[in-house]
Amino acid sequence: MPSYPKVVYKEEGMREGMQIEDANIAVDDKIELLDQLSDSGLKNIVVGSFVSPKWTPQMERIDEIVTRFTPRPGVTYTALALNSRGVERARQYSPPLTIERDPYPRLSAHMCDVFTRRNTNRSQMQEMETWPQRVAQAQELNVKEAGIGCNASWGSNFLGEFPVDSLMTLLEKEHNMWDEVGINVRSVSMGDPMSHCTPAKVEESLYRVKERWPEIDHFRLHLHNGRNMAIASAYAAMRTLGPDDTLELDGTIGGFGGCPYCGNGRATGMAPTEDLLHMMEDMGIETGVDIDKLIDCVWTAERIIGRELYGHVSKAGPRPKTVDQLYDMNAPFIETLEEARHFKKGPEVYEGGIYPYREPITSPYRERVEAGLPAFDSADGDFPWKQDWFPSKDE
Amino acid sequence: MPSYPKVVYKEEGMREGMQIEDANIAVDDKIELLDQLSDSGLKNIVVGSFVSPKWTPQMERIDEIVTRFTPRPGVTYTALALNSRGVERARQYSPPLTIERDPYPRLSAHMCDVFTRRNTNRSQMQEMETWPQRVAQAQELNVKEAGIGCNASWGSNFLGEFPVDSLMTLLEKEHNMWDEVGINVRSVSMGDPMSHCTPAKVEESLYRVKERWPEIDHFRLHLHNGRNMAIASAYAAMRTLGPDDTLELDGTIGGFGGCPYCGNGRATGMAPTEDLLHMMEDMGIETGVDIDKLIDCVWTAERIIGRELYGHVSKAGPRPKTVDQLYDMNAPFIETLEEARHFKKGPEVYEGGIYPYREPITSPYRERVEAGLPAFDSADGDFPWKQDWFPSKDE
Repeated sequence: MPSYPKVVYKEEGMREGMQIEDANIAVDDKIELLDQLSDSGLKNIVVGSFVSPKWTPQMERIDEIVTRFTPRPGVTYTALALNSRGVERARQYSPPLTIERDPYPRLSAHMCDVFTRRNTNRSQMQEMETWPQRVAQAQELNVKEAGIGCNASWGSNFLGEFPVDSLMTLLEKEHNMWDEVGINVRSVSMGDPMSHCTPAKVEESLYRVKERWPEIDHFRLHLHNGRNMAIASAYAAMRTLGPDDTLELDGTIGGFGGCPYCGNGRATGMAPTEDLLHMMEDMGIETGVDIDKLIDCVWTAERIIGRELYGHVSKAGPRPKTVDQLYDMNAPFIETLEEARHFKKGPEVYEGGIYPYREPITSPYRERVEAGLPAFDSADGDFPWKQDWFPSKDE
Repeated sequence: MPSYPKVVYKEEGMREGMQIEDANIAVDDKIELLDQLSDSGLKNIVVGSFVSPKWTPQMERIDEIVTRFTPRPGVTYTALALNSRGVERARQYSPPLTIERDPYPRLSAHMCDVFTRRNTNRSQMQEMETWPQRVAQAQELNVKEAGIGCNASWGSNFLGEFPVDSLMTLLEKEHNMWDEVGINVRSVSMGDPMSHCTPAKVEESLYRVKERWPEIDHFRLHLHNGRNMAIASAYAAMRTLGPDDTLELDGTIGGFGGCPYCGNGRATGMAPTEDLLHMMEDMGIETGVDIDKLIDCVWTAERIIGRELYGHVSKAGPRPKTVDQLYDMNAPFIETLEEARHFKKGPEVYEGGIYPYREPITSPYRERVEAGLPAFDSADGDFPWKQDWFPSKDE
């Protein structure tokens, strides 16, 4: 059975999420949510961005948030800054902020020349023109290991789909520049601001990178979810990489997020953190989060934002695993989304529903589980496989 | 690169979806939606169920729907019937209905004794007690090939998680009964009414079935989506099976659906058809659907039901691939879900948004794409990789 990479997860709701929501959401509400996120077990939280309030009024009061939230020991808090002015602003608040540094000096460019012009006011060519300077800086600092990367990796709302061949050609170009100066490439980053990822393309891209450059063992994926492919793509990445690899993944509680430049607005989204981490726990990848507390965060976010978000585990509840989480066998009909919240709110929310059974439901399996036994014994066990009553064609 | 199984997709919105919605949704509305689905290119549509209106009032007027909808040649219409009375009712309407028959006589049971009692008023043991009779019938009919199956395959809201070992033990038991009478097992069915699927478990289950019984080449998965795992699980299934296999998958437009017995109500859902089929098209698996028409269906369903459904492609639009689908480079800020619908409603929905650029955006790539050229030439091409301006460390 598979063994998975080490996964480093970053919660982007306060940045990717809030930047596309109403600019008038109260600072107090945002701080409440941030403090709740801090208490959920998440290890890496982006608190917002230091950007121009002219174009991103949602982040105008980031200073207040950073000043007033309650940092929790062991959690790394970062903020996005797109230029030196932003970094300077963020530095004022470090600590509690950690000034985010890519562990590797990196050459990167957008595959989509239109998106980079819309989003960052630079052409793809201007991005590439920074490469020689970056390489020279790395040489001066005597750096031994570096990274390569691309953004809008698999396609663009303004140019269409990009074949993985083109992505590999861009990465090859970057890799060659590091090769020329004898700096080892250990990391690759792939972004997807316009939600063109698919699990098949992510899998193919990572597979080809591993095949071409086996020494790369650090992978960073920033996947958007406008076409509902982020979770499947993240799974494909975990499945493709191995236990010696590190995979950095980003997502947002509830799955909200987006930017005004990509063309999908609030329909962009990211992988819902609670759904993705609940999957990872099931795969045996430790996340450290308390899923119940994450669901509290989603409910808080929905209240603050004023609408239902995209995640599912916050609506249906986690898969019950322990006896205390199991649903009541004799619950009546559960139909509405409000009734479905019984997993946290208790049976009051479905009381009075239709009860269609003449006799109360009982089950020998449930008795076993409540007694602390597994529902099924192992394959050689005696329940129910070898019970006298087990039917056979001879009966 | 991978080669995928043949996928047979069944649209369940009129049954799985409507059965958990308001019983008062007008018959005319349901017929409008069903006719729209018929026109979308879907090949297999479940129109509803012939069940007791006492417990499923949502299906009380199924006779009217079946009488008045417009069947389209080439589309297979089926209806769910849980007992002989239901089958008898459905037969009255065949044609246009096809009376659904499992292509294989099948032994199956729920892994969860509680759910089968709640949902079908039978214990797991009573399900198993039908097996000898089924085997005897198959022998009488001189059937050569048969199926095995399980439901609630990976876990239950009432009993917790089931290890894949237990599932394999159940299937082994069923397989043995066919072996004893010399009937070949060619098909396996796995259901998941309580949304306990994960891609890792689906992958492991299918892999172990293939490994144990290589002659099984027909797979049926009915996956629910309460924990947002249905698309990733479907992808894992496509990835695990090969080109000689057939994979039957079910889902619903918009991703709605559920039953009142499972404990998650409307939070249950299935894979959103439009998202899943859009992914399959990207993988080169032909679906025959017009994604634009499917999105119309989702919007109709949302209007009829009165709330936003779970799918994403209906909100962000499909990944633009052709020139006429590309977004306007000079679109202003696109922020709200209503503005995001420009992909179908046109630029009117975002007109008046913030336009942050001093000069209109232009791009040589866009010119290429609009001229019918690929954004990037092949790896050896001259754009932009070998342009004079391409930077190198020597400049």
